Amino acid sequence: MNPKDNTVDAIAPEHQGTLLVSCADRRGLVAALAQVLHGHGANILSADQHRDGTAGQFFQRIHFDIAELLCDRVTLQRAIGEVAERFGMRVRLSYADYKPKVAIFVSQYDHCLYDLLWRQQSGELRCDIPLIVSNHETLRPIAAQFGIPFHYFPVTQHNKSEQESAEMALLDAAGIDLIVLARYMQILSPEFVKHYPHRVINIHHSFLPAFIGGKPYHQAHERGVKLIGATAHYATASLDEGPIIEQDVQRTSHRDAVEDLVRKGRDIERAVLVRAVRWHIEERVLVWGNKTVVFE
Amino acid sequence: MNPKDNTVDAIAPEHQGTLLVSCADRRGLVAALAQVLHGHGANILSADQHRDGTAGQFFQRIHFDIAELLCDRVTLQRAIGEVAERFGMRVRLSYADYKPKVAIFVSQYDHCLYDLLWRQQSGELRCDIPLIVSNHETLRPIAAQFGIPFHYFPVTQHNKSEQESAEMALLDAAGIDLIVLARYMQILSPEFVKHYPHRVINIHHSFLPAFIGGKPYHQAHERGVKLIGATAHYATASLDEGPIIEQDVQRTSHRDAVEDLVRKGRDIERAVLVRAVRWHIEERVLVWGNKTVVFE
Amino acid sequence: MNPKDNTVDAIAPEHQGTLLVSCADRRGLVAALAQVLHGHGANILSADQHRDGTAGQFFQRIHFDIAELLCDRVTLQRAIGEVAERFGMRVRLSYADYKPKVAIFVSQYDHCLYDLLWRQQSGELRCDIPLIVSNHETLRPIAAQFGIPFHYFPVTQHNKSEQESAEMALLDAAGIDLIVLARYMQILSPEFVKHYPHRVINIHHSFLPAFIGGKPYHQAHERGVKLIGATAHYATASLDEGPIIEQDVQRTSHRDAVEDLVRKGRDIERAVLVRAVRWHIEERVLVWGNKTVVFE
Amino acid sequence: MNPKDNTVDAIAPEHQGTLLVSCADRRGLVAALAQVLHGHGANILSADQHRDGTAGQFFQRIHFDIAELLCDRVTLQRAIGEVAERFGMRVRLSYADYKPKVAIFVSQYDHCLYDLLWRQQSGELRCDIPLIVSNHETLRPIAAQFGIPFHYFPVTQHNKSEQESAEMALLDAAGIDLIVLARYMQILSPEFVKHYPHRVINIHHSFLPAFIGGKPYHQAHERGVKLIGATAHYATASLDEGPIIEQDVQRTSHRDAVEDLVRKGRDIERAVLVRAVRWHIEERVLVWGNKTVVFE
Repeated sequence: MNPKDNTVDAIAPEHQGTLLVSCADRRGLVAALAQVLHGHGANILSADQHRDGTAGQFFQRIHFDIAELLCDRVTLQRAIGEVAERFGMRVRLSYADYKPKVAIFVSQYDHCLYDLLWRQQSGELRCDIPLIVSNHETLRPIAAQFGIPFHYFPVTQHNKSEQESAEMALLDAAGIDLIVLARYMQILSPEFVKHYPHRVINIHHSFLPAFIGGKPYHQAHERGVKLIGATAHYATASLDEGPIIEQDVQRTSHRDAVEDLVRKGRDIERAVLVRAVRWHIEERVLVWGNKTVVFE
Repeated sequence: MNPKDNTVDAIAPEHQGTLLVSCADRRGLVAALAQVLHGHGANILSADQHRDGTAGQFFQRIHFDIAELLCDRVTLQRAIGEVAERFGMRVRLSYADYKPKVAIFVSQYDHCLYDLLWRQQSGELRCDIPLIVSNHETLRPIAAQFGIPFHYFPVTQHNKSEQESAEMALLDAAGIDLIVLARYMQILSPEFVKHYPHRVINIHHSFLPAFIGGKPYHQAHERGVKLIGATAHYATASLDEGPIIEQDVQRTSHRDAVEDLVRKGRDIERAVLVRAVRWHIEERVLVWGNKTVVFE
Repeated sequence: MNPKDNTVDAIAPEHQGTLLVSCADRRGLVAALAQVLHGHGANILSADQHRDGTAGQFFQRIHFDIAELLCDRVTLQRAIGEVAERFGMRVRLSYADYKPKVAIFVSQYDHCLYDLLWRQQSGELRCDIPLIVSNHETLRPIAAQFGIPFHYFPVTQHNKSEQESAEMALLDAAGIDLIVLARYMQILSPEFVKHYPHRVINIHHSFLPAFIGGKPYHQAHERGVKLIGATAHYATASLDEGPIIEQDVQRTSHRDAVEDLVRKGRDIERAVLVRAVRWHIEERVLVWGNKTVVFE
Repeated sequence: MNPKDNTVDAIAPEHQGTLLVSCADRRGLVAALAQVLHGHGANILSADQHRDGTAGQFFQRIHFDIAELLCDRVTLQRAIGEVAERFGMRVRLSYADYKPKVAIFVSQYDHCLYDLLWRQQSGELRCDIPLIVSNHETLRPIAAQFGIPFHYFPVTQHNKSEQESAEMALLDAAGIDLIVLARYMQILSPEFVKHYPHRVINIHHSFLPAFIGGKPYHQAHERGVKLIGATAHYATASLDEGPIIEQDVQRTSHRDAVEDLVRKGRDIERAVLVRAVRWHIEERVLVWGNKTVVFE
């Protein structure tokens, strides 16, 4: 027998399940979930949990192998549902043989888009990218390079509402699971954002909450900070204030003009955005209030 | 009820237990351990596990609350022992009301010693430090500052064996759980090291396996590397080759002379060593072959 | 001749001079300064310069060897002064045989104090520390450990003005060059701060401008950021808004309670503060407007 | 007048010159070079220098503006040449209106290639990339995407010498200034490497000198290191032992299988390689012995 056979990577996607759980904290939660999975023949590969004492909340992510499941998926779902009901849990059950459908929104900057497409193509991001939406024509050639349909929705003060409706129709028809704002320079309406709760990831080019709003690199240069950063967060109705998924920074100095900050910032933006997207599609992120629990 | 009451920090040390487990991987391990703890009234606060597919090994750390334990500790120990026997597990059970006893070995550099003592004094390191051993008198005043007995064992080519015997007698009499070589510039004999398996932590001043052996900063300067580092590892009979617990690096440049590397290196050495010691005394480290599993 | 003889470290402090220059940018500045130093027998060891195009300003730091100076220091000073006048330069000339006198202000946290004292004692910080000021008695024993006079100035709403006057008298009598607020938890009056322009360094426990004001770790926890940081800056009349000298961050996660942020933050605070203090006393920092030029 | 007009970025490439100097250290070097540039109307924008005390060597990089040069480039070159001869300097004079010609060598991994091409296309790397060489056909489509000629040279044990000759003929005909081995999995002969002294940059996927030779990620996994890294260096006849230009690392843990190290490593490899290439083409790297001086 090949010693690699029993590594996680060697487990076929159709045998891998992930359960995300959150609920008010109480005794016996871990044992109850371990029991129901074990009892149905699912083998726990890894489990992470977190207790937020202040909020009195419990969070868990269980990754399991269903190769020797004693029942079908529907029965497992029902059994987990019963435990969930008993304990008042919110649960999300998913299987690795389903690839989430991701739509990318862009404007004129190409660095985040390139990196997302390259990583998806190389297999690093396990998702499908059925479409790209933009309010500019600029990046259409890149979409073409990667063979992805590009949808142009020019937005003006007057047509924003209709354009967003058209976008939503497009997204819903394509069964989109996640929208990634890859430096999309157009503010989405609260209605649009609410339509996709915790399903829109934005990249902001500062280490929030510093430099909220427009032109953060100019603000950073003005203030003379020694670090610049980027923040990936779920979009909410309050601009730049949604739950933070990931942040990172890079050193800067007096030598850096605004243009240098923009250049250095591109590397952080794309790195931070890609990590957030990967964690989301690998079912590693839970939201509670305005904060995230990320089971890396 | 105060919402902070149920945070981990609010749990009294005498109510906190930690179970470290390793064994050949097989189905049902997670469920079996969750069940035995739950069944005896222990509440799982957090659990981390790791499967090493290549080695076919399973590792787990469970942190639990015994405030409402339905039995005494001896009974719990026995119940866990039965599960362990059934599954062929190696287990280690400990409680936070026992503070590990740590001996620090030093020579003439004070930076690691200072940091360990300051952090122990400030409560960051939950351990007792009943004694300091040195082959030089240099750091006796620092031991005095912190009120810790200082034992001087000058080592020569001829007396090494007797001195080590005397050191072992001292350590064993004091019930030492962990020996920290905080830039101790004297090679310990294989016999000494074997007497404390995975209980001697050394700090090496390079990012191993680069620059094994003496004068690593000189070697680094000679080679012209752009990073210097430090490595905390368990001491074994093979010098600088024991299981690595933690490593870190810092940037350097052509401007740094050997003396600058030494200065910069001090900060990494003490940071890396302190992290390794903290993880060890918080029962976060498991060794398998020549590698460590660290449940941070 | 020993090849190490001509390294900077081998140059005696009394032979090392540093010239800091800032002025409106124009042609010929670099050549004029190189010429006047060379012409008087000073040998340039290193020189850094910076042009801020937006501000139209020129900044330079020249480190030079005066072992073979053809004149005395007064004559060199006068010659540099003539160049400075011709080009409208602000200049600061200093020699390494003068050790700046640093006063440390503390309250109840000891981590920054310990690190400053240890590094000064070990020779890493080339300065004298003639006195420690505090509004609490808590850290008097540490001052005693290191043999440094400790001055207790309890501050209330009613006596603040007199206490600050007494502090200023003390500082001025001791010829203090730099005041380091090492987690001093008492806001200094604008009058006090203005008395020491760009000579008071404060450490703020967030990556400014995020989390200005009180309890930044609580604010950070509330916002759910994935990084925490610290900022060393010159104190000005506007709280937390002075010129930033240095910043750094560390990763955090949902697992970190406020207490964990405080603990992790201590390491960043002391590291950032020490770097800022070192750069200041090594004459590496120039201020322009609300920003710094740091010639590392 | 626009205040941005005098920033470096606003200076036209044809007005920007760079002078790289190295020689035995002696007095008056800085002043002599400043004088000859100033005397001919070149305005020094920035200058970095380094003295290596052990080697007794002096290194300098001067970036200057020739918009108001009082002579032509040939005369300036001659004047600098005279100073160089007087002081025994090796000098390299270049102007920003010449774009270095870079050839990229690849095999089957695309991550470094993509990043280099994207950054060159976006203007971040100021160079031309007239051709790509490969010993596999795999990446031809990417070359096509970016419109760059792709030359396939399959190498076997028997044809290596002829193939290298053909490659050299191609490179020399195209006037290639720099060869970038972007994960080129074929060892170049010493003859090939010697033909391009300090003009071949290789990326090695470990923090050298750790894990020299083949399969460094496997070696790293085997040793259980907590950091993986990458090293960009000039290729020399001794494999993996040439002068290091840049290195970086990323944390890893027991959770990372070899495949994870490979994935994480890709990000470091491309980042490190791109920095080294940028510094080389911006004339920021000097080699002395087996070490580099990098004026960032």
